[in-house]
Amino acid sequence: MDAAEFRKRGKEMVDYVADYLEKIEKRQVFPDVEPGYLRPLVADSAPQDPESFEDVFKDIEKIIMPGAASPACTELETVMLDWLGKMVNLPKEFLAEKDGQGGGVIQGSASEATLIALLAARTKIIRQVQSEKPELTEAEIMGTLVAYASDQAHSSVERAALIGAVKIKSVPSDDTFSVCGSALKKVLDEDKAAGLIPFFFCATLGTTSCCSFDKLLELGPLCNKENIWMHIDAAYAGSAFICPEFRHLLNGVEFADSFNFNPHKWLLVNFDCSAMWVKKRSDLIGAFKLEPLYLQHHHQESGLVTDYRHWQIPLGRRFRSLKLWFVLRMYGVRGLQEHIRKHIRLSHQFEHLVLQDERFEICAEVVLGLVCFRLKGSNELNEALLKSINDAKKIHLVPCHLREKFVLRFAVCSRTVESTHIKFAWQHISQLATDLLKTWEHNHHQQ
Amino acid sequence: MDAAEFRKRGKEMVDYVADYLEKIEKRQVFPDVEPGYLRPLVADSAPQDPESFEDVFKDIEKIIMPGAASPACTELETVMLDWLGKMVNLPKEFLAEKDGQGGGVIQGSASEATLIALLAARTKIIRQVQSEKPELTEAEIMGTLVAYASDQAHSSVERAALIGAVKIKSVPSDDTFSVCGSALKKVLDEDKAAGLIPFFFCATLGTTSCCSFDKLLELGPLCNKENIWMHIDAAYAGSAFICPEFRHLLNGVEFADSFNFNPHKWLLVNFDCSAMWVKKRSDLIGAFKLEPLYLQHHHQESGLVTDYRHWQIPLGRRFRSLKLWFVLRMYGVRGLQEHIRKHIRLSHQFEHLVLQDERFEICAEVVLGLVCFRLKGSNELNEALLKSINDAKKIHLVPCHLREKFVLRFAVCSRTVESTHIKFAWQHISQLATDLLKTWEHNHHQQ
Repeated sequence: MDAAEFRKRGKEMVDYVADYLEKIEKRQVFPDVEPGYLRPLVADSAPQDPESFEDVFKDIEKIIMPGAASPACTELETVMLDWLGKMVNLPKEFLAEKDGQGGGVIQGSASEATLIALLAARTKIIRQVQSEKPELTEAEIMGTLVAYASDQAHSSVERAALIGAVKIKSVPSDDTFSVCGSALKKVLDEDKAAGLIPFFFCATLGTTSCCSFDKLLELGPLCNKENIWMHIDAAYAGSAFICPEFRHLLNGVEFADSFNFNPHKWLLVNFDCSAMWVKKRSDLIGAFKLEPLYLQHHHQESGLVTDYRHWQIPLGRRFRSLKLWFVLRMYGVRGLQEHIRKHIRLSHQFEHLVLQDERFEICAEVVLGLVCFRLKGSNELNEALLKSINDAKKIHLVPCHLREKFVLRFAVCSRTVESTHIKFAWQHISQLATDLLKTWEHNHHQQ
Repeated sequence: MDAAEFRKRGKEMVDYVADYLEKIEKRQVFPDVEPGYLRPLVADSAPQDPESFEDVFKDIEKIIMPGAASPACTELETVMLDWLGKMVNLPKEFLAEKDGQGGGVIQGSASEATLIALLAARTKIIRQVQSEKPELTEAEIMGTLVAYASDQAHSSVERAALIGAVKIKSVPSDDTFSVCGSALKKVLDEDKAAGLIPFFFCATLGTTSCCSFDKLLELGPLCNKENIWMHIDAAYAGSAFICPEFRHLLNGVEFADSFNFNPHKWLLVNFDCSAMWVKKRSDLIGAFKLEPLYLQHHHQESGLVTDYRHWQIPLGRRFRSLKLWFVLRMYGVRGLQEHIRKHIRLSHQFEHLVLQDERFEICAEVVLGLVCFRLKGSNELNEALLKSINDAKKIHLVPCHLREKFVLRFAVCSRTVESTHIKFAWQHISQLATDLLKTWEHNHHQQ
């Protein structure tokens, strides 16, 4: 949708809201629909080709309004997470469908998804240990639990362990910044020998620093064998798995207990919309379920109803699945694939520009839309380059450390980015590097 | 703003967004402003009288855009929480102002605020105990910690303790459904004698079931004396404290460590917007702070910057303070007070209608917008009445249990509610009760 169509459609939507408010007394205060009403009214999966705004918009009155905020909000979310799960070709166990044991939920952020997974895993292991050793208290068991994640994992994993009050250990990544099976096994063996109980591993697909990928096909079977909950954090990279040529990066998800990625990062859905799936919804519900009378309702044991309040930290929820519904239908799977592919083409274009300049080096394999690069030279030099780039305020880069190296990160992420922007950015960086190197060498000679 | 003005203003806003997108390349990618830029540009407190939409809208380009999403998003939030805190006359220690040690933050829900407070309290007490008894492990300490809340408290408090992996105990409320100091003291004394460590009390102002109020003036000094973090959950009732005649219900907040209410419940701000204040921001930050390089920035130790990521579970944040800014300015304090007062007048109108019908009884004091009532008679009879009301789908009621009694709850909460709606609702309920009692007595005689 371009700006001209946005003006038209946005104004139609404003009128729809105003009409709704003016005529609200004509609507019923409680819906007539029965649980499960929505699924038969929508397609089984996202359309391949774009639909028009009119077609999507018409369905608001036809499909959503009869179910009002509830149950429409819940049911559309369940179906949209099935759509999205199918788009990345998740194993069937992760889908809710009509009678699945798994399913998806929208969280606010990957941090929350990781925390929820860790808490569910914690409850599960405590119950297991208590059933074997009833003499142990919950606190005694918690003192022995250990969670694991890559030394490249996002800080939110450590934070989840802090909140969950369990130990967490970094697993050393290899020279491609990936955790392999043997690295995890070594830590597990040491910890088990010390009497600790490994219970949770957070694998990362697409690390924040350099977009590296943990080796799921080695890690998954190990976690399964060791009775460790494997959560996959693919916050950024997950969107790319809608393209068949990148789906292999998700191989091994079949061993995971939970999986998360953020459509708000790279699938043209506004923040916040973090998609999380579990194989066994009962594991989540078991960790959080409380049932006061004012939250009880007729259908809660019917099996047709997803009670998302047991799947998340807050009780209240917004109708975030509408965003997914509009975006998936108006772009179609092909439109979204093209968006992803374009970004990856452009990141390789940037990579090639860097490689043609022998003053620079690429610091990690370019797999998706992120290019890690630096000037050959000291960290101080690269810190100075970053400062001159960000001070110029024409583009903005966020750095990272890879091992001891200070690295610049070029991320292709705008909806409207084109090849000309990439060329512009590189010429700009290249010129600033030239300017910097002149003064730098001058100062260096003086010393 | 009526529907006609909404049509006009909504469409102007659509154009503003479209213009922004069309001309985005002319804007700088990173703001020029320095930390603390925003506070001097806005008033110290919310206006008493309404401002026009034009005036508020103009300030977007003037005040927000120069600070882009960041730091504008953070700084406006800090200032708006100061405005709101002043509106309910919070003690100065809870305000951020230029150099305060406290301050406010927008959470998604009261559940999250309670959890955050409990986690901060947990970290604080663990550090205290460890400094006195370094031989104890964190797990050992956690096994002795106890949190407390009223037997009328919302289920989210129990859930916070479940997530935080600490024991929680219900404190018996008195015959007005309020917790008094002696009730808490009795439980504390028992638990301390048993070697447990009380560390957290969640007081409720305006319970979900019947809008009762815990006795802060007794509980607060007790918590302070016993080194217990007192959190106040005023999710619904808090908005009423902007009216001087209801502010006394908040007396005792000066003893609390944290306070929370939901402007999205009763202050005309859309969901979600849950306002939370703490006296010592360092208590929150201490519980969550982690500092990876990709989240570091120049100003983080300057004291001018609030890093809200240390105040909440998620890392990413939405710009929710804009909603507060618009609503507080367009209604003015007086407009919002009138909104609250009208609802309370209408709930008393309903109360009087109930009291004039001797078949019914009022089950708890009507203080704000909630009326708890029932037919004099069995729980089964009242369950049948609720069913007939909700099946008719003209109004919708949610029940509760008060002690052993099944009670109907009439909540005045719509923005557009008028006295005629109250009369309509009562006539409807009264007629359904008449119909029900006929069949009920008939069936009863047959048995």
